Amino acid sequence: MNVLIVHAHPEKRSFTTAMKNTAQQTFKKLGYEVEVSDLYEMKFNPVASADDFGDFEQTEYLNYALEQRNALKSNTLSPDIAIEIEKVKRADLVIFNFPLYWTSVPAILKGWIDRVFVSGLFYGGKRFYNHGGMVGKKAMLCFSLGGRDHMFGDNSIHGPIEQYLSSIQRGSLAYVGFEVLPSFIAYHVPYITNEDRQNILVNLEQHLQNLDHLNPLEFSHLENFDEKMNPKN
Amino acid sequence: MNVLIVHAHPEKRSFTTAMKNTAQQTFKKLGYEVEVSDLYEMKFNPVASADDFGDFEQTEYLNYALEQRNALKSNTLSPDIAIEIEKVKRADLVIFNFPLYWTSVPAILKGWIDRVFVSGLFYGGKRFYNHGGMVGKKAMLCFSLGGRDHMFGDNSIHGPIEQYLSSIQRGSLAYVGFEVLPSFIAYHVPYITNEDRQNILVNLEQHLQNLDHLNPLEFSHLENFDEKMNPKN
Repeated sequence: MNVLIVHAHPEKRSFTTAMKNTAQQTFKKLGYEVEVSDLYEMKFNPVASADDFGDFEQTEYLNYALEQRNALKSNTLSPDIAIEIEKVKRADLVIFNFPLYWTSVPAILKGWIDRVFVSGLFYGGKRFYNHGGMVGKKAMLCFSLGGRDHMFGDNSIHGPIEQYLSSIQRGSLAYVGFEVLPSFIAYHVPYITNEDRQNILVNLEQHLQNLDHLNPLEFSHLENFDEKMNPKN
Repeated sequence: MNVLIVHAHPEKRSFTTAMKNTAQQTFKKLGYEVEVSDLYEMKFNPVASADDFGDFEQTEYLNYALEQRNALKSNTLSPDIAIEIEKVKRADLVIFNFPLYWTSVPAILKGWIDRVFVSGLFYGGKRFYNHGGMVGKKAMLCFSLGGRDHMFGDNSIHGPIEQYLSSIQRGSLAYVGFEVLPSFIAYHVPYITNEDRQNILVNLEQHLQNLDHLNPLEFSHLENFDEKMNPKN
């Protein structure tokens, strides 16, 4: 089992970084191979642009998805993107570990998706959802936030947390074919005791040891839609 | 009426950029003052980090929201952030104009939110939603995407588009107090005729001329929740 942890936090001593370290150690104890993309440490560039394509003439009209397909074929993707793609290819499981920023991923992680999930490999034509390029791989979010758990859910002040995650879990991960496992969520982190934080790390270890028994989230199956993507019934 | 258009597209000749230009011209015809933050042209840095705070000692533990509040008080926010904050302060209406990337905003725009929506001004303590720092201002998304409109909505292949927008519309804009107007959405843009694209620009102009008659989206009101943010009934 190969695991890729994509980690995005600007402070190495943060609790979110401790979650990354716990995940890394837990997987190693299980005998898994673990790679980590520490996006802040790598100073990963999150901005999709024409510079991502070695062969692209700056005077040409930029169609980003089209150039992704061209550069993938001709092996001219920017090296920082190509390296991350190889890591994803090797992985059976990708963990996204981050602090929730504005109910979503930090920009540096959003840009990792924008640039690494290239057209022609991750998706393309009718290859998406259960026919996406990443079918057979699993993905999971692992994140911290300031809010308390009772602030999320039906009739709560912020509503269900799943709504905020849908652009990542459904619109990105499930779309390219990942089987999306239930998230590990660390609530209220800046305000709790160190003992409570330690307990979260213990729970995280248990969550990760138990991944095989978690039911993946359910999303659309292409078989239920016709050629024009209208529902069949 | 002062309008700020925050625009994020890597290609100046793109249809999304034409939407920005149409918005700019429409507002000018209406006699509004218009400022544009063209994030790609500005090479805006989307990565939240310790570098955002002039007085911050690199050996200190980074609590990003806390340092936002400190730097706001002491006027030591990074100049690129301070400039954007002043633009938002001047604006009665903020338009976010972008191509939908992975059912959300491009990373460069996510990072604009991560860095500009500073704690202590945009929100803080019990100042959020209808008590947020931006109460009295309006915001609206204006975006293009590749999918067709029938691919979104209940029982469709991708589900309601609102779910994907909630981290921006609810978790970011409404949270800091903006009145969020219904989005202008340009579907299927890469695949339609130039005539259809021109029609979209005409529709956009009408949408923008009609903003006063649009009903804002509904989100939580703090008055319906108790001190611990549990629902009162």
